[in-house]
Amino acid sequence: MPSAVVLLSGGLDSTTALAMARAEGLTCHALTVRYGQLHACELAAAARVAAALGAAEHRVLTLDLAPLARSALTSPDLAVPKDRSLAEIGAPGDVPVTYVPARNTVLLALALAWAETLGAQDIFVGVNVLDASGYPDCRPAFIDAFQALAQVATRGGGFRVRAPLIAMTKAEIILAGARLGVDYGLTHSCYDPIDDRACGRCDACHLRRKGFAEAGVVDPTRYAT
Amino acid sequence: MPSAVVLLSGGLDSTTALAMARAEGLTCHALTVRYGQLHACELAAAARVAAALGAAEHRVLTLDLAPLARSALTSPDLAVPKDRSLAEIGAPGDVPVTYVPARNTVLLALALAWAETLGAQDIFVGVNVLDASGYPDCRPAFIDAFQALAQVATRGGGFRVRAPLIAMTKAEIILAGARLGVDYGLTHSCYDPIDDRACGRCDACHLRRKGFAEAGVVDPTRYAT
Repeated sequence: MPSAVVLLSGGLDSTTALAMARAEGLTCHALTVRYGQLHACELAAAARVAAALGAAEHRVLTLDLAPLARSALTSPDLAVPKDRSLAEIGAPGDVPVTYVPARNTVLLALALAWAETLGAQDIFVGVNVLDASGYPDCRPAFIDAFQALAQVATRGGGFRVRAPLIAMTKAEIILAGARLGVDYGLTHSCYDPIDDRACGRCDACHLRRKGFAEAGVVDPTRYAT
Repeated sequence: MPSAVVLLSGGLDSTTALAMARAEGLTCHALTVRYGQLHACELAAAARVAAALGAAEHRVLTLDLAPLARSALTSPDLAVPKDRSLAEIGAPGDVPVTYVPARNTVLLALALAWAETLGAQDIFVGVNVLDASGYPDCRPAFIDAFQALAQVATRGGGFRVRAPLIAMTKAEIILAGARLGVDYGLTHSCYDPIDDRACGRCDACHLRRKGFAEAGVVDPTRYAT
């Protein structure tokens, strides 16, 4: 059975990517990185998801990006934006303060290291560009450039960087996951949780709520507001 | 004064790259990664070098690659090859067991995160392809691919990945550093040190010895054999 490395944050998108990789029959090696995210409860979500979706193994790597990469997700002195409208969240050219510099480059580099060691050809990452926050490292050009890099960065090349959600809306992602039996109650999206409940006000919460509403699927999230 | 991020292992090459960046008048932010290398005494060398060469700051990040990237540099059960001839070390297509999968991709990704946070345009890395061990992530094609990635992975792009040693022999590197006043006695190259002395038998020691001999510069290294 061919193997894949799947980057798993514990959020809705990476969980769906894992479900898609499993649906292809791939043996999935899930990789979660404790990179200094203040919303560390996503790490527990990642563990729940890896177990529930039948990852062959789940590794959690610790790497504190906070000293290098300034972001509201890693720096307590930067506030997570709240109550932004969907038009603001999706505004072209806007990169919000929750962007973590080069984070997805770092995560894919780690996934590549593991894939090369395992002899896995596929690397799954749950980035998407629609219904997202305008992060540069979620765009097709980024995935293409990393895929090109992976061929020359390694002994043999031959890697495929798979971003199956990249052109899907959040509603389409939720429907695809629901068809695969994903229990989104296991996942965590919120950037600024309150006692493990979602704040209901950050960009991640707004996009998640909108996705469930548009999909017509019951949102299992426990929101604080 | 423009800033640069300089990847600094504590070895001869990255030390020379730092000296070159300083000679351009750049404010240098040196980054060392404790990635699980068994020859951890290079970390002390990096601290000595950063101080001696006037880095504006020196950060050491901890990230244990050993669970992901199998290599003789990170796995005690894999032996570091000894007493290979220079012809063997430089054989085309040979990637020795000391190659750490995707290590330089990970290191450059971390440097990119810091450069974006600092607003630094230049990232220096001391890779070289001549008088080296055939690692894929030391070749010009790798540097070019990472530079292309950096433009799309980040908010604004505009990064330059500088690999000034890439086409130099070890002797040329040593002569260039010596002209800049580098004290190579501060540096550490050996993959398998014995009580902080260089083993004198691994590929890194053989290449270092050959470099000093060809440069006609006294080798300050304390070799065990």
